[in-house]
Amino acid sequence: MTNPTAAMLVIGDEILSGRTHDTNTHFLAQELTKHGIRLSEARVVPDDHDRIVAAVRALSESFDTVFTSGGIGPTHDDITAEAVAAAMGRRIGVRDDARAILQAHYDATGQVLNEARLRMARIPEGAELIDNPISAAPGFTLGNVHVMAGVPAIFQAMLAAVLAQMTCGDPILSQSIRIDRGEGDIAGDLAAIATDYPDLSLGSYPFHIDGAYGTNIVVRGSDGARIDAAMTRLAGLLAGIDT
Amino acid sequence: MTNPTAAMLVIGDEILSGRTHDTNTHFLAQELTKHGIRLSEARVVPDDHDRIVAAVRALSESFDTVFTSGGIGPTHDDITAEAVAAAMGRRIGVRDDARAILQAHYDATGQVLNEARLRMARIPEGAELIDNPISAAPGFTLGNVHVMAGVPAIFQAMLAAVLAQMTCGDPILSQSIRIDRGEGDIAGDLAAIATDYPDLSLGSYPFHIDGAYGTNIVVRGSDGARIDAAMTRLAGLLAGIDT
Repeated sequence: MTNPTAAMLVIGDEILSGRTHDTNTHFLAQELTKHGIRLSEARVVPDDHDRIVAAVRALSESFDTVFTSGGIGPTHDDITAEAVAAAMGRRIGVRDDARAILQAHYDATGQVLNEARLRMARIPEGAELIDNPISAAPGFTLGNVHVMAGVPAIFQAMLAAVLAQMTCGDPILSQSIRIDRGEGDIAGDLAAIATDYPDLSLGSYPFHIDGAYGTNIVVRGSDGARIDAAMTRLAGLLAGIDT
Repeated sequence: MTNPTAAMLVIGDEILSGRTHDTNTHFLAQELTKHGIRLSEARVVPDDHDRIVAAVRALSESFDTVFTSGGIGPTHDDITAEAVAAAMGRRIGVRDDARAILQAHYDATGQVLNEARLRMARIPEGAELIDNPISAAPGFTLGNVHVMAGVPAIFQAMLAAVLAQMTCGDPILSQSIRIDRGEGDIAGDLAAIATDYPDLSLGSYPFHIDGAYGTNIVVRGSDGARIDAAMTRLAGLLAGIDT
């Protein structure tokens, strides 16, 4: 399949301590699938400079695009921008365009652009700003890394801006079928179908409702005709089991 | 702090495609914090042998303990056991103790222990079984890697069994305080307090409710007296802002 690959890097002690439940990865996964981009890995690391640098380097070298979430606010533990700059070998400092955005926002809301808030104007050289329509402080794109906020509403708004500019792959299509047998009953036949359709992804998801076992089979790929053919085989499997 | 470290490895295409929202990582994070174990990284990788092997190796070498979730069912895409065995350099095959557990379960429920289901008795040599009180098919512990099911109810049951046997660290304590100012207003003072308490983790979590900005500060560590002292400083910061 001709789908670009992507990785997600979530940054924040609060996710790893269990205080906050990360929802950005799931949202990103769904959006990328709609846009024909294959999310290939997700990682969560703490607010630690060296750990962020290592993860950004590893993911940006392995995948077409990297999205990060978290660590771009005004406090002492917001160190993502510096770490991404270090990972990509760029200098970082307060940039006039970002400072102007923040100044206008705080002037309009009657707040002071103090030293802490000015940290949010620290942008690596060569980076493009990502608009933040909610609280002004911008994200940025540096190389193949998109640095975005952790607050879900802001993450989602920034992602929409980024995806609107990205080259997308063939849409990833999917069809599903429910089979009212445990997955252990159909696993052998399912494996045979998967072998015959190496270009498709066949997922098997067991469920257990009101004492009955069943399995949802999801077929994913970019070629609709191939998916149709696999679904016909699956329907035959279903019929065969019922007789 | 004397807390053992841990990593989580979630395995499954369905998480990365956005079909399924992983909840096991968040549950694990909360349980580990209660048990004084520091979750230091989480990763999600697809159902791909080489990717699982690489992730298991990297995480088991870097952290005291690794937990995995997913990929131990009966279908063709359930390849976690083989990949973990390969990562740890062990042979794998159907083991009599695991087969007996499955045989008893399927006999009791009037189902057949067919070839696909027998895959769930494939356990690496030297591994200890993890009990599955819900659907019988066991997880296993190999070296410092605990291999568990992806279905949340089973994951949680297996985790309880594993944690009951683990040596835990000092409990990770936390206290929090709500300050009704934006985090940009208090970030400078907060950084100063964080510098004076390098043994504690100070997290800053902004919120925006009914038009008002505020910040929750969470202080974490293993020394209750140090946390008390930091909270007193924070309360002073709060009072100072109010005047």
